[in-house]
Amino acid sequence: MSIKPWKILRSQYLVRDRWLSLRADTCRTDQGILVDPFYILEKKDWAHVLAFDAAGRILVVRQYRHGSGVVSTELPCGMIDSSDGTPLAAAKRELLEETGCVADDYETVTAVYANSARQTNRVHCFVGFNTRKVAEPRQEASENIESEFVSLADVFQMIDTGAFAQSHHIASLYQGLRKVGRLKPDPARPE
Amino acid sequence: MSIKPWKILRSQYLVRDRWLSLRADTCRTDQGILVDPFYILEKKDWAHVLAFDAAGRILVVRQYRHGSGVVSTELPCGMIDSSDGTPLAAAKRELLEETGCVADDYETVTAVYANSARQTNRVHCFVGFNTRKVAEPRQEASENIESEFVSLADVFQMIDTGAFAQSHHIASLYQGLRKVGRLKPDPARPE
Repeated sequence: MSIKPWKILRSQYLVRDRWLSLRADTCRTDQGILVDPFYILEKKDWAHVLAFDAAGRILVVRQYRHGSGVVSTELPCGMIDSSDGTPLAAAKRELLEETGCVADDYETVTAVYANSARQTNRVHCFVGFNTRKVAEPRQEASENIESEFVSLADVFQMIDTGAFAQSHHIASLYQGLRKVGRLKPDPARPE
Repeated sequence: MSIKPWKILRSQYLVRDRWLSLRADTCRTDQGILVDPFYILEKKDWAHVLAFDAAGRILVVRQYRHGSGVVSTELPCGMIDSSDGTPLAAAKRELLEETGCVADDYETVTAVYANSARQTNRVHCFVGFNTRKVAEPRQEASENIESEFVSLADVFQMIDTGAFAQSHHIASLYQGLRKVGRLKPDPARPE
């Protein structure tokens, strides 16, 4: 492979607080080109849960998202805190806090990059089985999250009509569906 | 629906240049909670192309990504410039610049949010058919991009081994595959 990492010549933080860490790097590419500045967002990893109930329905959450300025339907998710210990522990915590639900068993699906171009963090995705409500949600003061179990056909309809429109969550949904065998390449078109 | 948008009380730019536009909003949530600051990244929309050749193979590109610090396999993609006119025009331009390829026909797949929580921009995804190389790539000085056509089985293997690990691109891949009927819910598990 002829592609090599860039070298960082200088690096400085422009913003560094509880909510955002923005770094400006001065880099030299593998072909000797100077890139200045290249902005990097240092972010905590995220956990997503594709949570099925006993009937195979999928748990979705709905909340206002200020980036897009719309009410967004998504999978239960959250930032992985250092106190969580593991990505799975964070997924279980967020599931309980946002929806009041727990699952019996979990499988690890994947850990991918949120945005390789400009962000440092990964998205860890898990599937949960036999998910059910055991408590009232304990959301943060700034959160107002609704949740419900819906069929896979309904989730696809939400995607196709733009209600479920957060790219990271669409990736985790499909990855989880393929993991559990609910989505397969068309056997009539083998490769 | 009981969830309503937040009100923006104040707004200021912390960084605003060619590469990044970072805004700090002071907001009041629909439940009256003050959120200060809430950081927003104003970004240009992106275009992705799931480009099939005549044999149904998929065009992937490989480049160093400084956010994750790794060489990343992805779909051809790029920012939509105001000079592009339409997202599809941007997709065609990026495909030609990054890989030297053109496709005969295109279909629009979807336009989703890159990150509803903190970013303003959308990802526009297209599928292209009968894609073939017609020229040498014309990459920017800071770019060093390799491309090749691979089978769908190979793409899934790249995902499963972590070589194709950019969440947005995984979402566009699956959305495109479902659009063209190459990926279907398991008929043995109807819902």
